Amino acid sequence: MSGLFVTFEGGEGSGKTTQLTLLARRLRASGQEVIETHDPGGTAIGKEIRTLLLDPRSAPITAAAELLLYEASRAQLAREVIAPALARGAIVLCDRFTDSTLAYQGYGRDIDLALIRRLNQFATDGLSPDLTILFDLDPEIGLARRGRDVRYDVARAPDTGSAWDRIEAEPLDFHRRVREGYLTLAGEEPDRITVIDAGADATEIEAIVWNRLVCLRSVQRCRLMTL
Amino acid sequence: MSGLFVTFEGGEGSGKTTQLTLLARRLRASGQEVIETHDPGGTAIGKEIRTLLLDPRSAPITAAAELLLYEASRAQLAREVIAPALARGAIVLCDRFTDSTLAYQGYGRDIDLALIRRLNQFATDGLSPDLTILFDLDPEIGLARRGRDVRYDVARAPDTGSAWDRIEAEPLDFHRRVREGYLTLAGEEPDRITVIDAGADATEIEAIVWNRLVCLRSVQRCRLMTL
Repeated sequence: MSGLFVTFEGGEGSGKTTQLTLLARRLRASGQEVIETHDPGGTAIGKEIRTLLLDPRSAPITAAAELLLYEASRAQLAREVIAPALARGAIVLCDRFTDSTLAYQGYGRDIDLALIRRLNQFATDGLSPDLTILFDLDPEIGLARRGRDVRYDVARAPDTGSAWDRIEAEPLDFHRRVREGYLTLAGEEPDRITVIDAGADATEIEAIVWNRLVCLRSVQRCRLMTL
Repeated sequence: MSGLFVTFEGGEGSGKTTQLTLLARRLRASGQEVIETHDPGGTAIGKEIRTLLLDPRSAPITAAAELLLYEASRAQLAREVIAPALARGAIVLCDRFTDSTLAYQGYGRDIDLALIRRLNQFATDGLSPDLTILFDLDPEIGLARRGRDVRYDVARAPDTGSAWDRIEAEPLDFHRRVREGYLTLAGEEPDRITVIDAGADATEIEAIVWNRLVCLRSVQRCRLMTL
């Protein structure tokens, strides 16, 4: 029995978390065991690391320490939650995973992509998503959906009392680099990464995500029959 | 102006922290700017990471997540504290650093040494100690100094209320591998790593450490004169 590992990726306000919840509900209704989780987080130690990473009241964190904290949380999540769930045949839906680190820390913060890939490989113990759904959206629209004034730039005016987390509060240019990074990754792995226009109607997106899952399951079953 | 970076390494109860304090006092008395710090820790975020790592009440941490948390704390410490202090000519005395990770996570937990070296290089941004003093001691003696019953084995009987931190509470075999690892590292880099018999008299050790510092400073001055 082999499970299915699906990750949801995209910028702030792209609606990926809402769609993850909808998909989980539909899969459960069809009788599947579904694990919903998120990265960073998803474990006791991961929750603590997530707080350090996202709380805008956290002490200033260097880009290098930030990257290593994300990978530490992922190392725990992959071993404690994802790998055991897949081993017993569950479907794991994960809100963000390795591609987020490539997009945000690699393309966004300009850390060497080869190093991040090596860290991702170590942190996940080689575990890669069967399917990644990328919710693509202009960051101006995504951040506006989250109620942010996009002219606000944390680099010029840090607002430690902000309701925005440390990443959301980055300047718009950062979010534009992240979006371009995501699209580059999707271009490199079109079989794994499905790009969805996150500006489309939510019901339409839900249907596309469902069809992609059904299609992937069919391919898996065909492969099993061939063996 | 270039500072001096000295790290103190060794097993539990080896007396390295006491000697670090003595050396700092003596250097300050001679008019030097001295920064005393410790790894993990030494920064606001590092302090939080240290708590996650060492508190025996922490959730179980996988070896991979543990390694990445140590490196995250180090990345912050190297950039926020050590590099700026060295740049202004201070002497930095650091209780544990990169060699601890090679000894404990590499030799102790059997994580690939090449990967740890790559992580150390990234976390420190290439910063390496000018001098490392290794306090070598039979772990049975070191742990007994810390008041531990060495027959106690956390792998068999986890005691979450213990006054021992997560690393101290590891079985004796682990501490023996760590000691052998340290000695192997010292054999590979005899110019950087000075091995001291931590079972010797504290006053005698203090004199050896002081002489090693004076000697290193003389060599540095000679080099400067030659240039």
